[in-house]
Amino acid sequence: MTRTDFSYTLGSIVERFGGELVGDADVVVNQVAPLSSALSWHISFLSNPKYRRQLQNCRAGAVIMGVAERDATDLPRILSDNPHAYFAKVSALLNPRQALAPGIHSTAIVDQTATIPTSATIGAFVFVGAGVKIGEHVVIGSGCHLGEGVEVGDDSLFYPQVVIYQGCVIGKRAILHSGAVIGADGFGLAMENGCWIKVPQIGRVVIGDDVEIGANTTVDRGAMDDTIIENGVKLDNQIQVAHNVHIGAHTAIAGCVGIAGSAKIGKYCTVGGSGMILGHLEIVDRVNISAGTLVTKSIAKAGTYTSVMPFSEHQDWLKNAAHLRHLDKIAEKLSELEKKISELERKKP
Amino acid sequence: MTRTDFSYTLGSIVERFGGELVGDADVVVNQVAPLSSALSWHISFLSNPKYRRQLQNCRAGAVIMGVAERDATDLPRILSDNPHAYFAKVSALLNPRQALAPGIHSTAIVDQTATIPTSATIGAFVFVGAGVKIGEHVVIGSGCHLGEGVEVGDDSLFYPQVVIYQGCVIGKRAILHSGAVIGADGFGLAMENGCWIKVPQIGRVVIGDDVEIGANTTVDRGAMDDTIIENGVKLDNQIQVAHNVHIGAHTAIAGCVGIAGSAKIGKYCTVGGSGMILGHLEIVDRVNISAGTLVTKSIAKAGTYTSVMPFSEHQDWLKNAAHLRHLDKIAEKLSELEKKISELERKKP
Amino acid sequence: MTRTDFSYTLGSIVERFGGELVGDADVVVNQVAPLSSALSWHISFLSNPKYRRQLQNCRAGAVIMGVAERDATDLPRILSDNPHAYFAKVSALLNPRQALAPGIHSTAIVDQTATIPTSATIGAFVFVGAGVKIGEHVVIGSGCHLGEGVEVGDDSLFYPQVVIYQGCVIGKRAILHSGAVIGADGFGLAMENGCWIKVPQIGRVVIGDDVEIGANTTVDRGAMDDTIIENGVKLDNQIQVAHNVHIGAHTAIAGCVGIAGSAKIGKYCTVGGSGMILGHLEIVDRVNISAGTLVTKSIAKAGTYTSVMPFSEHQDWLKNAAHLRHLDKIAEKLSELEKKISELERKKP
Repeated sequence: MTRTDFSYTLGSIVERFGGELVGDADVVVNQVAPLSSALSWHISFLSNPKYRRQLQNCRAGAVIMGVAERDATDLPRILSDNPHAYFAKVSALLNPRQALAPGIHSTAIVDQTATIPTSATIGAFVFVGAGVKIGEHVVIGSGCHLGEGVEVGDDSLFYPQVVIYQGCVIGKRAILHSGAVIGADGFGLAMENGCWIKVPQIGRVVIGDDVEIGANTTVDRGAMDDTIIENGVKLDNQIQVAHNVHIGAHTAIAGCVGIAGSAKIGKYCTVGGSGMILGHLEIVDRVNISAGTLVTKSIAKAGTYTSVMPFSEHQDWLKNAAHLRHLDKIAEKLSELEKKISELERKKP
Repeated sequence: MTRTDFSYTLGSIVERFGGELVGDADVVVNQVAPLSSALSWHISFLSNPKYRRQLQNCRAGAVIMGVAERDATDLPRILSDNPHAYFAKVSALLNPRQALAPGIHSTAIVDQTATIPTSATIGAFVFVGAGVKIGEHVVIGSGCHLGEGVEVGDDSLFYPQVVIYQGCVIGKRAILHSGAVIGADGFGLAMENGCWIKVPQIGRVVIGDDVEIGANTTVDRGAMDDTIIENGVKLDNQIQVAHNVHIGAHTAIAGCVGIAGSAKIGKYCTVGGSGMILGHLEIVDRVNISAGTLVTKSIAKAGTYTSVMPFSEHQDWLKNAAHLRHLDKIAEKLSELEKKISELERKKP
Repeated sequence: MTRTDFSYTLGSIVERFGGELVGDADVVVNQVAPLSSALSWHISFLSNPKYRRQLQNCRAGAVIMGVAERDATDLPRILSDNPHAYFAKVSALLNPRQALAPGIHSTAIVDQTATIPTSATIGAFVFVGAGVKIGEHVVIGSGCHLGEGVEVGDDSLFYPQVVIYQGCVIGKRAILHSGAVIGADGFGLAMENGCWIKVPQIGRVVIGDDVEIGANTTVDRGAMDDTIIENGVKLDNQIQVAHNVHIGAHTAIAGCVGIAGSAKIGKYCTVGGSGMILGHLEIVDRVNISAGTLVTKSIAKAGTYTSVMPFSEHQDWLKNAAHLRHLDKIAEKLSELEKKISELERKKP
């Protein structure tokens, strides 16, 4: 949260993004900061009414907060119906993406049939294959590999060491983080005479616009049809997306999730960290999968779904876990007791 | 599923791979496609009798299917005892691996003591250390790193940005996908005076023939002995194989699986996605571990093993989860009731 | 376990590291090896009394073992209160890190404002951004990327293809394995009008001294404040550390673990493989999380915590799993039976 090169008055921010300003419109802010550490040149953000107490000693120049919090502080404040989104926009205003000089680094290897506009930036040690098509203002970080025929839409940003296999298509305004691998072969195998035979993976990965893909996330190419990631999907780090998966628009998936082959996930879904979704199933729009949950069947109804074993002290767990293997017997005993009691009740005087 | 440069008559396919042809032997196919989207120049594949309905409007030039499905369509068809494997071979025939011009890219850094046959292809920005031995027709994609003394068997293919640490051995016909890291240090630590001391990891990774390793999968070198992956093993993406693990021949492991140190897994096993196998245990041949299952003990008998908490709507889960922490009490109460009922029964008139 | 270039007598080892020598001080050892395969020029190690049987046919030149095992063998032996740590030190003595010639490889791209001492080694295809500060004797493997303003402390070692995003700080004596990505954006999103807006991630990753980070592990930069990894932390492979996580000193985390945003983990904790720790919670010092355990709440007391569903043969699991969805009903039935029995007992003659 060091100083940026940008300063704005609260008045100019409200003019730009709307919201209601309470306090001095001439206050100048230069950077965002949390309530607890903000100084006079910072604009801060009350993300949740339960942190309201932190406003008491807050030294921020201004605070972005919900309309309902109007009287929770005397500090200059911007009230918004959606303070989180408002804050995101103010932070982006103060922290714009660093402009890089366009051009192709002298060490990059670019096939002569590739199309690279003069507005694009191609970093050191980048490999660009035959027939690649790069959009306007695209930035390809050092050490990336773009296989034959790859297409990258305008304004996309690849951090260093992203690999895109041949033929895959990335939309506009994509952000791909380091170590992401797009288009590796799906896990397609047939067993014959005691050996696995590889099933060629001839589909592509086709990624829409405004997609962000985290560090070391992998998205496999389709077996025959393509693997599809629609517009606005956000994938965190270390996610595995198998062949022929289809992820609907604006779905957000947290780190370490695995999605098995041919799973179809709807729009506006969320999947919590370390979740796992089995293959060949379908999840409708607006489903939320809790962290650590394994989805074994299709989900036909929007809502939140969970399959988590609660954690406990190990000694307590040991006692309970023993019974987990014998629930069937517990249920059986219970039925027997019910019968016996019915009999006793019948016979009672 | 665009057109390939290869066309075959059904007659020539049956001549090559066997199977029974029903229909016109002169039909020419050029590419594979799913039943739902195949056109006249495609050969398709009925993977499962339950998809038989898709044959009705299928426009494929031909279909590969099981012997039992002989009458399920009027389309030209090839009947096979193992249609999945048959399909894999036809697809590989139509989609052969792209032949690359052999040679060492001008940007590659190759130690003068490395052995690289003229049939091998070494890509841009590749680093080849001292004493490395590369087999015939090997392809090393751009940006790979082969540490000192690494050996790679004939006909192996490394996609871009694979890292092999010093001394590791890869067999013939291996396929390693981007971001795979072979031979990093195992997680060996000893605690002394409140600090962790690193235990040097001096073993290697030794990988047999016909092994495929997925994108961003990691296989650690052994602490003293080697980590061993036998012939024909297939590892999907994002798998972690710890030091001194031994994976038996033809075992296939799906994405996001973790295998802890010194685990020994038999031949012809499968592990479903996100499974986890603890260390220092042994699993015999032909064991199938379900997706999401944590294996905490050795398994001495072939079969399928599972440890999955079924998922449900969050509200239902909340109600059930509360009891999971108290199964011990449920079992206790049940025992008490059983005693009381016995007593009541004894006393009953 | 091939011969090293180093030989030491047992006498000189005890002189250096302490411990009690039983047997011939002039025995020379050259390498470490397991009990089962050690030869006369090896020094071996009894890690656990339960392996004592392996001493019977052991042919090692010497064995490191606990004081209590003094009479378990006639072989020359070094007795130590902490044989595991003792062994680690002997192995490090015999297997010192390979000394590399310092210097900057001719293919590396180094910004002229970067500070690189003559004692450092910068590998092939390395990119070093503006303002980077490298410590003494640092080794940066081939293909690494150090973004603008990165700092790396003395004696640190980066294996090939590590990526450090701009502004992150790595302490002294760090070991980072291939594919590690430090400082990618945290997963910060705000929803507005049906689209996710990216929340700029302006914090850094700040890593203390003596930290080891495994292959393909990712540590995200903070949203506003920094993500902090304290001294002596050890992270295995394929771990995901989200933005604003704080990991206390000397905590060790096994492979495939996910740690969600703003989680605070204490000192001297351990997390088993494939564990998952949810965000915005706090775990005190000296907590051990079992493998595969999902931590959903803060933990205020040192100890071991577990949430694992025991695995079983699939058929048995099917029977039990059915009841897991209905524990609530089982508990309810049990209460009803208790009432009925009380009533029967009241009425009994």
